[in-house]
Amino acid sequence: MEFHEPARLPQGFACAARHVGLKPKGAPDLALFCSEVDAAAAALFTRNHVVGAPVTIGRELIRGGVLRAIVANSKIANVGMGEQGIADARRMGALAARELGVPAEHVLMSSTGVIGLRLPLEKIERGLQGMAGELQGDPVVGARGMMTTDTHPKALSCSIGSCVLTIVAKGSGMIEPHLATTLIYMFTDARFTAEELRGLLRNAADVSFNMLSVDSDTSTSDTCVLMANGLAGATDPAAFAEGLEAACVRMAEILARDGEGATKLVRARVRGARTLADARRVAKSIINSPLVKTMAYGADPNLGRVLMAVGKCFECDIDPTRLGVRLNGVPVYEAGARVEVRNEPELRRLLAGDPVDIDVNLGLGEFAATAFGCDLTHGYIDENAAYYST
Amino acid sequence: MEFHEPARLPQGFACAARHVGLKPKGAPDLALFCSEVDAAAAALFTRNHVVGAPVTIGRELIRGGVLRAIVANSKIANVGMGEQGIADARRMGALAARELGVPAEHVLMSSTGVIGLRLPLEKIERGLQGMAGELQGDPVVGARGMMTTDTHPKALSCSIGSCVLTIVAKGSGMIEPHLATTLIYMFTDARFTAEELRGLLRNAADVSFNMLSVDSDTSTSDTCVLMANGLAGATDPAAFAEGLEAACVRMAEILARDGEGATKLVRARVRGARTLADARRVAKSIINSPLVKTMAYGADPNLGRVLMAVGKCFECDIDPTRLGVRLNGVPVYEAGARVEVRNEPELRRLLAGDPVDIDVNLGLGEFAATAFGCDLTHGYIDENAAYYST
Repeated sequence: MEFHEPARLPQGFACAARHVGLKPKGAPDLALFCSEVDAAAAALFTRNHVVGAPVTIGRELIRGGVLRAIVANSKIANVGMGEQGIADARRMGALAARELGVPAEHVLMSSTGVIGLRLPLEKIERGLQGMAGELQGDPVVGARGMMTTDTHPKALSCSIGSCVLTIVAKGSGMIEPHLATTLIYMFTDARFTAEELRGLLRNAADVSFNMLSVDSDTSTSDTCVLMANGLAGATDPAAFAEGLEAACVRMAEILARDGEGATKLVRARVRGARTLADARRVAKSIINSPLVKTMAYGADPNLGRVLMAVGKCFECDIDPTRLGVRLNGVPVYEAGARVEVRNEPELRRLLAGDPVDIDVNLGLGEFAATAFGCDLTHGYIDENAAYYST
Repeated sequence: MEFHEPARLPQGFACAARHVGLKPKGAPDLALFCSEVDAAAAALFTRNHVVGAPVTIGRELIRGGVLRAIVANSKIANVGMGEQGIADARRMGALAARELGVPAEHVLMSSTGVIGLRLPLEKIERGLQGMAGELQGDPVVGARGMMTTDTHPKALSCSIGSCVLTIVAKGSGMIEPHLATTLIYMFTDARFTAEELRGLLRNAADVSFNMLSVDSDTSTSDTCVLMANGLAGATDPAAFAEGLEAACVRMAEILARDGEGATKLVRARVRGARTLADARRVAKSIINSPLVKTMAYGADPNLGRVLMAVGKCFECDIDPTRLGVRLNGVPVYEAGARVEVRNEPELRRLLAGDPVDIDVNLGLGEFAATAFGCDLTHGYIDENAAYYST
């Protein structure tokens, strides 16, 4: 899969971002994404019981299967604000719709940041004025307007046949999507129905964003949207599905590597599982283990921690005598026994790099899964212990 | 519940510890606990699929319902060593039995420390010689011989009616017991059958060690043993059950507070749940959340993180509009809405203390549960990233 350098939006899509006064120091805090024609759309949202007002409204909006625009602010999440929060989110969507001259029911809104504070609507209203005149084709501009603790804006694009697919995302902490994702917007000029997009989105998210965990904490605002405006016409569905999956996996890796405080990507690749559910569960257990994550940070080939993280999947079929483990390609455990590592300094050098790959063979069946995570470092503690919520 | 100061062993029990050369710098690394008469016994072991050889043998030994002694070494866990590990563990038990002059099938063994290394049996054999002559009544001596990353030896004792109950434990990281525990030995001179002890142990562990999590990682060597030698005669079973539970909760708090890198105990007390399973799940979710743990470290009243940790219990019955939250006794959320905190500096002062208590009312039913954890700090990263496993 070749990704465009630099990334660009598909035809008919444009975005803009502004500082409207939510963040300090003039950093962009409001983003607008827009299609010049109606786009078929599908979306996935967080499974957290406590959800942001934009998620409540988004679930309702997306039933129509059509979107024209997305408006997203950072710094304040509009979560835990009851009826006031719902009214505020609707108003934010209506203001963006007015600025763009499109129906309010075709504008999805997202808010991300601190939970339990009210959205300052006057700032958003003032900030939106004239933003339609700034719409342009670089997705990095929009990505920058959504950043919270991200260290860089996240956008990628690629060609699939004659159409283009672009993914814009944000997210660095409170990330374990579980059947939804953090904020991820995907745009294409391919032509699909909303029904087709739902299937494509679910399948691609399952092997990418749903296998991503920075810290095992599931956000209250996760939203993943796929919009197709059809301007490039029909495309081969199988080729599009394959391209979408590759692009989603790449974006999942980008998100994991920029996890709060992270210095590297950690991938757990499990095969030989008796069921797909077992493969996914074991892979997630490995990347969520604080002891495995600190081992990746310390570049120590600590086989015991990997065995522990596999073995603690109580409900999975696991036979310790058939387990095999490789660390960055080097066999360290086979058929339930330790393998002598000939060149340990070389293994430590590999583990000090990026990514750290942990391959586990359960030796029991045909199923495989890969999970995406990161190391656990002083940076995570700094970022989250120093966080001031009020 | 009054605990003895200092702690002591019940009548007929004694212990000893020595440095036999597993740890550097002369620190004790081998502990021996012994009853002068046969003791009825029950035990719980880790649910990890990958288990240490001592756990495999312990499960078999405990079926007899009688123990005379426990021998435990630190520094090397004897896990992942296949048939060799089983033979080594049996040999270690037999050597202790010979030194004490008791049957080998009445000696339980434990090994804790690095996974995947072979036990140096010559050092253990040499070290055990003459140890029977050093047996004495201070449980702290034995506790010191089992320490790994613990910052202090853990032992407590109390009187229940005319009998004494003593708990000795070790554990600081890789702690989320799940129906078993880290290494915890409990001794009493009360008289109970092995069958009675099994019920007492299961009930007490359920509200204490099974609700304990330092880092959500489940050890491969968890073992919890209760031995009753009957020298104080019969005691009221209800009073004993109550005393045992209080002592186990106290020890769970001691273990949590000494979690790797921890500066404080964090308790999540959940009530108003529709089922006991829901109450336990939500309480565990809170104390396992890295974002809640870093919030406790940073003493920030971050309501959003608590709501997130409650809401991500997908399979539980949760109604966001009925949720209530108190932080160290101060209401911050009630019936699904934020409560204005009048004196925020005072709340921050409370959260800077030890323990941090997070009370959640789900507002749906009659069930309650408390989970025991600790904060997540730079110390945890230091300890685990710098760990050298080979």
